[in-house]
Amino acid sequence: MALTWTKLVFLHLLGYQHLRCSATLRHMRYTSNDQITEEVAKLLALKAQIGDEGKSKKFVLKTPKGARDYNPKQMAIREGVFKTIVECFKRHGAETIDTPVFELKDTLTGKYGEDSKLIYDLKDQGGEILSLRYDLTVPFARYLAMNKVNKIKRYHIAKVYRRDNPAMTRGRYREFYQCDFDIAGQYDLMIPDAECIKIVHEILTNLGLGDFVIKVNHRQILDGMFEVCGVPAEKFRTICSSVDKLDKTFWEDVRAEMIDEKGLDPVAADKIGKFVQMKGGPELIDQLLKDSPLTGSKAALEGLEAMKLLLKYCDIFGIQDKVSFDLSLARGLDYYTGIIYEAVLKGAETLPTKTGEQVGVGSVAGGGRYDGLVGMFDPKGKQVPCVGVSIGIERVFSIMEAKANAMKIRTTETEVLVASAQNGMLEERLKLCKELWDAGIKAKVAYKKNPKMLNQYQTAETSGIPIIAAIGDAELKNGTVTIRDTETRKEEQVSRADVISVIKDRCKLSATC
Amino acid sequence: MALTWTKLVFLHLLGYQHLRCSATLRHMRYTSNDQITEEVAKLLALKAQIGDEGKSKKFVLKTPKGARDYNPKQMAIREGVFKTIVECFKRHGAETIDTPVFELKDTLTGKYGEDSKLIYDLKDQGGEILSLRYDLTVPFARYLAMNKVNKIKRYHIAKVYRRDNPAMTRGRYREFYQCDFDIAGQYDLMIPDAECIKIVHEILTNLGLGDFVIKVNHRQILDGMFEVCGVPAEKFRTICSSVDKLDKTFWEDVRAEMIDEKGLDPVAADKIGKFVQMKGGPELIDQLLKDSPLTGSKAALEGLEAMKLLLKYCDIFGIQDKVSFDLSLARGLDYYTGIIYEAVLKGAETLPTKTGEQVGVGSVAGGGRYDGLVGMFDPKGKQVPCVGVSIGIERVFSIMEAKANAMKIRTTETEVLVASAQNGMLEERLKLCKELWDAGIKAKVAYKKNPKMLNQYQTAETSGIPIIAAIGDAELKNGTVTIRDTETRKEEQVSRADVISVIKDRCKLSATC
Repeated sequence: MALTWTKLVFLHLLGYQHLRCSATLRHMRYTSNDQITEEVAKLLALKAQIGDEGKSKKFVLKTPKGARDYNPKQMAIREGVFKTIVECFKRHGAETIDTPVFELKDTLTGKYGEDSKLIYDLKDQGGEILSLRYDLTVPFARYLAMNKVNKIKRYHIAKVYRRDNPAMTRGRYREFYQCDFDIAGQYDLMIPDAECIKIVHEILTNLGLGDFVIKVNHRQILDGMFEVCGVPAEKFRTICSSVDKLDKTFWEDVRAEMIDEKGLDPVAADKIGKFVQMKGGPELIDQLLKDSPLTGSKAALEGLEAMKLLLKYCDIFGIQDKVSFDLSLARGLDYYTGIIYEAVLKGAETLPTKTGEQVGVGSVAGGGRYDGLVGMFDPKGKQVPCVGVSIGIERVFSIMEAKANAMKIRTTETEVLVASAQNGMLEERLKLCKELWDAGIKAKVAYKKNPKMLNQYQTAETSGIPIIAAIGDAELKNGTVTIRDTETRKEEQVSRADVISVIKDRCKLSATC
Repeated sequence: MALTWTKLVFLHLLGYQHLRCSATLRHMRYTSNDQITEEVAKLLALKAQIGDEGKSKKFVLKTPKGARDYNPKQMAIREGVFKTIVECFKRHGAETIDTPVFELKDTLTGKYGEDSKLIYDLKDQGGEILSLRYDLTVPFARYLAMNKVNKIKRYHIAKVYRRDNPAMTRGRYREFYQCDFDIAGQYDLMIPDAECIKIVHEILTNLGLGDFVIKVNHRQILDGMFEVCGVPAEKFRTICSSVDKLDKTFWEDVRAEMIDEKGLDPVAADKIGKFVQMKGGPELIDQLLKDSPLTGSKAALEGLEAMKLLLKYCDIFGIQDKVSFDLSLARGLDYYTGIIYEAVLKGAETLPTKTGEQVGVGSVAGGGRYDGLVGMFDPKGKQVPCVGVSIGIERVFSIMEAKANAMKIRTTETEVLVASAQNGMLEERLKLCKELWDAGIKAKVAYKKNPKMLNQYQTAETSGIPIIAAIGDAELKNGTVTIRDTETRKEEQVSRADVISVIKDRCKLSATC
């Protein structure tokens, strides 16, 4: 909507004092309050389009790029997912903490490697230089170091911020939820690590997302593998990040990248190529421990022994059938020092396309051990060993939303609509509604003096309110309330004195209450 | 911790490739993995202190000014408060939505008057110019206009951001929760407005914060009052903001500000002085309608009639004893167009000090009607009338935290600790723990191969875990589990087959489960 000069001049004359203006309008005794409100709104809308500087610019009504609103239906799904996950975290004895949405920029500096360019910085408005959090792990490590906590089992569900290029990573948001569970503390080998995997198993099972596999690997096995394949030590990280692409790319492309871009000896690359095809259970570990070149690396040996223990605990937890030791798993983050894992939905494991486009790969959870991160915040480098898991909650939301589109989701929990077929019943309706509220019953009443009965029935049906409590002259005279079942449309006269207990009983029986 | 040149040079030589460095260390066959992790952590700590630019600067381990972490105890309190509030919102049929933490700067422009300087802007990193949300009301109005929603009852609990000067407003945070409930839509006069006040009443009662009063006033009564007192129309807003200070300042000071700073005629000021002392119920309205100069203002008449209706509905809702029509209530925000209200805790109503310091005034909720705000976002200025309430949740947290300090708050919900007095029982403990988890019981096990029994007992006692399930050779041989009540220390042998149901029954009975 373009602004004309006339309007601009008019607004200039008003000096943008919209509310002074509004007061003036009232002083002039406009006949209707509605009329005033409408005029004020129009002026305010014009003013908002002009902005503080008085320059004409177009106001765009949108959320920032990569961010979105959640509507009530999406929120209902989100709440259901969070409930399942938090129940699991609590079953495993976790506490929860919260940290600010922004951190000192220095806190985030040097933690994310190349990805640091994706950090949102705040404007320097005088004072500290701040950035929005990029994940929940670094703030957690900062929290542990700052509060000298050396032992905690905590979960944290909150939004994080990444200036990702939406063109490159479709379906990803710049503001999105992370849902982390971490165990910090010095414990015996692989026990908390196995519990993290058990938690992933429970959550994915309880969410009912379909069949899945939890891939596990170990940082020391990867390093040992690179060592025995003849990868020069200084190339470990970059070759590792090539391996990390195997879930989205064919081996030939990864191999080409290693050789052509990263200058790896083709012989070394081919040796890696054999290893990364390997996956299995305890029998694979035994085989590798017996006759693999891996045994030439102390790191690999340590890693394999740890992995053996982990798989034993997974067996005790009854989840071994979903856990796969997979030598191609190489999670990108630099800070992992031990076990790493990633859960992938089987149905969603799509084949990579040759056009280079990233297609949904079904990864819904991941994590690992990071024993060095907390020490980065401690002046003396004091370690707090940590292992954790992050649930890929946005992907879970997408799956649940797609499922939910097929069915009706209630966004309110209202149990009773207080209604009347007669005019002049507002006060009686409010009175009954008050009684229901005070008894803890979720109730609602039309905000009209004289609503139509049909409209009230329709409200109950469309919003899934199971019970209608209707009153009229007859009910008032007889001291009763008509209780109507929205679904069956059956009606029953209930004495006013019993109405609370009757409704409470019905709610207990009804699945929709 | 100062960095020496030697260390800097060393790190320069490493090229900050900390993980390449870590790989190198491993390649050099350091004997212990712990030793490597420790070295890596130390180097990372040094690197973090140097930062990306390689300059030596001191890293400060803190949260940003005005922001704070919530520890598990604070979170447990917060969750309890939210639960009470959300239950009330749901009882009143509300849905929930969420909006991004940042908005286009233009969306916030021109909505907050002088307070706009307190808005956090994001750095221009290329792309849109963004700001952190300042409240939840403007994003709500943007949401309604953008999605063409003209009818919704929603709550929104989320953090908002204000660059307030902590020196001026002690105890206030720059990142804090808001907890808003709003009803949007064209309805009959004062019905949704009265429900908002009923909600405030329910929440404050259910939270058990002590006695309170809900002050109500009306924008049209205020405007009418200024009109009949002879305040020039262009001074309505500024005089209104002086009146708004009456909850923290003596009348003499407010009067002086009106006359000396704002150039108001002392006669007008004294007339206002008489009005703002008035407070009461329906009888005050009747009196004002009969023989007050207010009847000379059409706005005031409309406002008084509306207020009369509101108080009638409050009477029906049984909350009239806590509601006080108070002519001194003048909430600061410009966008209110009708009823305004504010709930104040009676015990916390402290007297203003002469030193000008703001002392806690006990305001724990407030809100009002704003019929023009959504229209600011609509290109045609189309209105969506709204009325809402914001719970002063941070103040509620403070009060609850102070109360909680006197008692023990559990931060976990663990019901059972699986323990053993004997060594070599790790696998059996994990097995039993798995069974409990799979049955939905909140269970925990020590992450040690051979934990001491005394330590396990102590864990249960200090974390308030009500049940210990102990196993040893005897229990395994007999197919039993020893169930110990942490509080009474009474023990009982339970057959392994019955252990789940016995524990479930105990949890049902126990208040601590």
